[in-house]
This record gives sequence, C-alpha cells and structure tokens, in this order.
Amino acid sequence: MTIQIPSLKLASGYDMPLVGFGIWKVPRETCADQVYNAIKLGYRYIDGAWDYQNSKEAGEGVRRAISEGLVKREDLFITSKLWNNYHKREHAFEMAKLELEAWGVGYFDLFLIHFPISLEFIPFDELRWPCFWTDAAQTKVTPLSKVPISETWKALEDMVQTPENPAGFVRSIGVSNFQSQLVTDVLSYAKIPVSVLQIEHHPYLTQPGLTKMAQENNIAVTGYSSFGPQSFLELNNKDAINAKSLFEVDVVKSIAEKYGKTPSQVLLRWNTQRNVIVIPKSNNVDRLKQNLESVTFDLSDDEIKQISALNKGLRFNDPDAFGFPIFA
Amino acid sequence: MTIQIPSLKLASGYDMPLVGFGIWKVPRETCADQVYNAIKLGYRYIDGAWDYQNSKEAGEGVRRAISEGLVKREDLFITSKLWNNYHKREHAFEMAKLELEAWGVGYFDLFLIHFPISLEFIPFDELRWPCFWTDAAQTKVTPLSKVPISETWKALEDMVQTPENPAGFVRSIGVSNFQSQLVTDVLSYAKIPVSVLQIEHHPYLTQPGLTKMAQENNIAVTGYSSFGPQSFLELNNKDAINAKSLFEVDVVKSIAEKYGKTPSQVLLRWNTQRNVIVIPKSNNVDRLKQNLESVTFDLSDDEIKQISALNKGLRFNDPDAFGFPIFA
Repeated sequence: MTIQIPSLKLASGYDMPLVGFGIWKVPRETCADQVYNAIKLGYRYIDGAWDYQNSKEAGEGVRRAISEGLVKREDLFITSKLWNNYHKREHAFEMAKLELEAWGVGYFDLFLIHFPISLEFIPFDELRWPCFWTDAAQTKVTPLSKVPISETWKALEDMVQTPENPAGFVRSIGVSNFQSQLVTDVLSYAKIPVSVLQIEHHPYLTQPGLTKMAQENNIAVTGYSSFGPQSFLELNNKDAINAKSLFEVDVVKSIAEKYGKTPSQVLLRWNTQRNVIVIPKSNNVDRLKQNLESVTFDLSDDEIKQISALNKGLRFNDPDAFGFPIFA
Repeated sequence: MTIQIPSLKLASGYDMPLVGFGIWKVPRETCADQVYNAIKLGYRYIDGAWDYQNSKEAGEGVRRAISEGLVKREDLFITSKLWNNYHKREHAFEMAKLELEAWGVGYFDLFLIHFPISLEFIPFDELRWPCFWTDAAQTKVTPLSKVPISETWKALEDMVQTPENPAGFVRSIGVSNFQSQLVTDVLSYAKIPVSVLQIEHHPYLTQPGLTKMAQENNIAVTGYSSFGPQSFLELNNKDAINAKSLFEVDVVKSIAEKYGKTPSQVLLRWNTQRNVIVIPKSNNVDRLKQNLESVTFDLSDDEIKQISALNKGLRFNDPDAFGFPIFA
C-alpha cells in the first residue's frame, strides 16, 4: 500500500508534505540507509541541517534512492538550515553551498534560519560538538556577533532561484525558533515570502498564539519534537527526564486504544490535522512506517482539544542552557 | 524627611531614579495635581506615554512644581513612549514633537518604543480608546503596518541630542514590551545604546531570562505593574480578577509584617533591590508617599527568592486580547 501524504501549499507556491523524516540525532553511520529506507517507505520530505552533522550521509541515501529509480529529485522535498555562526551574508552563502555540496541534491526545497541568534564566525573545518554554542569543553560560551536578522534574511532571499536570479539554489525560505515579535519584524521587510516557521511543538508546548499568528500570515508551521520529552532523553535533558512521557499520558493512551493506533501516531495526527507539519525521527524502520501511517485516521475536534489541554509551556530545546535565553 | 532615591547609571551616561511615578490610568482631571504632589513628596521620575492621554496635564503639574521652585528641570527624569500607529520615521518625529509640546518640558530624559508592533497610521486628531488597537467600538482590529523595528529605532536615535545632532530633544532611548530575540536584534544594529527595557514584571511574571539578558547587556530594566493583578482590576481583566491579590499572598504578607511595612512596599523593594526600576501609580497621596518610602529597608536574599518563587508566567497586559499575540 502506498500512503498518500497530504501536502500544504506554501506561500512560495511550492507544495510541502505534512509528514517528513527529521534526521536530527540520526547517527552518521546509519543515516544514509535510514534516509534511503524512509524514501522507500514513502517519505518524500527529509528535514536536515548543518547542525545535525549528517548531511553528506543523508545525501548518499537520497542519491541511492534516485539512482535506483525509487523517486525523482523533483518528487522530494529537502530542507536544510543555516547555523548560528554563519549569519553574515558571505558566511551564509559559503555555508549553504558547502551544505548543498554535502547533500549533492542540486537545490534545497527549503532553507531556514535555524535560530534567531548570531554567534561569532567559526571556520568551516572546525566542526565540534555541541555545535558551536560553546567550545568543545563547554567551558566557554561562543560570543555573540552583531549581525541583524535582516542581513541574514536578505542573504536567504538572494539564494532563492527566480527568473531574475537563475543562480539561486533554494526554492522556499523560512525561519526556525523565532518568536512572534521577530516573525512580525521579518514580515515587515521580507521581499520573498516567509514560507515556513519551524518550532518546538507538542502537547506540553502548544504555543497557540505563535501557531495561529504564523498560519494567519500564510506561514506554514512545522513542529519539531512531536513526542515532547522523548526526543530529549538521549541528551540527558533534566526537564525531559522529569516529565511524564507523552506516550503514558491517559488522554493520549485512551485515544490511541480507541482507534487501534499507537500513542505516537495520535501525537502526530494531533499536529497534521491542525496543518502543523511533523518531522519525526526514528532509527527503526517499523516506527518510520508507523509515523508515516499516522495520516490514515482522524481525531475528533474534541479529542484534539483534550490533547491541546495538556499544554504547560514546557520547552525542552532551550539554548538558555548554554547561556542564550532566546525564548525569554 | 527627604528620601534619597537611589539611581542607576544608564548606558547613555545619564542617571535614572529607581522609583518613579507611573501615570498610566491617572485621570486627566487629577493628573496635574498628582504629578505636582509626587514631585513635592520627592519623586523625580515621571513615567508617561502618548497612550496614557494625560501628557498635557502631567506637564502642567511638572511646570507648576518648577515654577514654585520645588525642583529644576534638570532634577527631573521625564519619560514618554512612541505609540504603535506612529512607527514610520516621519510619524515618529511628528508624534514625539506633539508629545513634547504637550508636556512642555523642553526635552525627554527617556523615550521608548512602547510596543514592538506597528499599526496603520491614524491621524493625530483621532484619539480614541482603546488607543488605536481597534476602532472605538472594538469591532475592527487596526491593521498592521509594515514598518521594520530598525526604521523606528533609527528614528529614535535621530531624536537623541548629541554634539552632532544639537536639534535632538531626547537624552536616552529604549524599548518596551520587547522579547529577548528582538532586543538582541536591535542590539545588533543600534548605534546609540539601548538604555532601558520596560516590561511587565511582578512576582507572578518574573521573566528571569529576559531580565538577566537585559541587565547583562547594560540595559536597565523597568518593571511595570509591580502589584500584578491589582493594576488590571479597574480594566475588568478576567485573569486579574481570577488571580489572588499579591497583597494577600502569605509570603508577601509575612515579610511585610516582619519589617513593619505594607505588602506594596515589599513588592516594590523586591524589584529595586534587584536593580529593577519601578513606576507605581497611585491616585492617593499617602500611597504615593508609601511607594517612595519603599527604598528605606532591605529584604534578605532568601526573602527575595521566596517572592521570586511565586512566578507562574501570568501576564495581564497582553494585546492578544485585541488580536495581537505579540508575546507568543
């Protein structure tokens, strides 16, 4: 059975699938195979980033799927993101081109500003964990660099391929981890539409005002970490360890039982039925398949409300831990 | 007894008193007298705004105090704010000059962008409640206007009097109701320092990350609505009506009893001991005096922590009520 993944029409005019495969924390060793498997299962959207440090391997998986005739490039929707140390115009272009070279996919369907914060430039060959927020020993925070978001946004606009800009290598652009005020500011000067806002979004952090504001402005919302604390356990995130698993919450479990689905499928459907795009990661082929199949049933409005009522403003992905209170 | 109000040295180099008289919701009829009384009691900082619609009367009170020899202009610290409909450069200048004319005080010590949102221009003679978020009947939301914050900030910079800009009529500039991300963005392009960030700040909404981030960047934080729900009861704010009065909270009451102070004095001191400037309003001369006297005792670090622990992210001043989820 081939699953038809519904799409959203972006402000750019391109279609974006409502379910993608997010490769944050997919190990380099397995990334090519897992991306290939995902495409074989029916995924068309792969969500990567410079920060994830597995773009080369993801690109291998994509190119294998294409070379075997599973898909054509134009069937796929490949996303990457500009990392914080490369917000200056010249660095943004350099990073984007290195990133595109690593993927080897010709163009990006979507390119996002990963975080609304500009840190000091770090040479491209000095890749290190935790990916430039601090030095490798985590003893020294990387200093801020004064680059206005407008400069970075303009760089992204100039990456978009148009009849006037045939050298462009990106189809749609957007932002990630931006708050409402900064989204509004970008909208005031954007010449090319903000197509997507990617944010942390799960029943413990529903961000209703931000989601509504974005969608009302024709910005498609992608929610990351759809399973809430689950994604952060492997990072030893204390708040995640202390939070109750969303898979164990009564309302999620009972709805899952009612429909004969898994709690994770319920959590994903809670997103996609509200036109929030999801990008669940899995290192397991069965769960990759389950995640894709989450679009094959519908929750009632009341069930969606019950799940939304779990909101408690609990954010797990907060660089305040590195000294950057960007969500304050 | 004359109370010495401590001051903060702003990034601009000027001193700003830690306690001021905020005139939001001071009725026009009593505003001149109350401002005059405040100065007579020892207040030196008056916090006004175009939005408060009582600037002319406040200016009368100031000028009466000066003409009676109570103070000189240079002893005072007068603040006003740019309203949302006047973010375009030419409107910002026009509004600021009308506002300064209304006050009749020669120059502003501090001028702030009131909210980080630009709404459609409304002619200056069409003043109406609720001050331009909506039409008078509250049936139609005022449309957004695409003015980048950078344009508005640059206008404020060009209002600052410097040797190169002798026509300037403002000493220090800042912002109000900005989130961390947008403050960071302004800092990336500001040529004149951001001296002040004014935010809602009380034990139910302590915003520790934002406060810390601002103070670390040498931006003085002014907290408004220091008494929390109290300020919003007269506006029939539902969240305020449902919240427990901070004057009735055990920890606040018992600390007040211990020192022989009022709960309101404890709430103010909780701010000023952490270098958060306060601007309590009162329509009553005795309470004006009490508020000023809040600097005459000290809380212990532990008491400050106990009060901070009341935080529950409860915001009362949220234009989401008018359709603008600016704090999302």
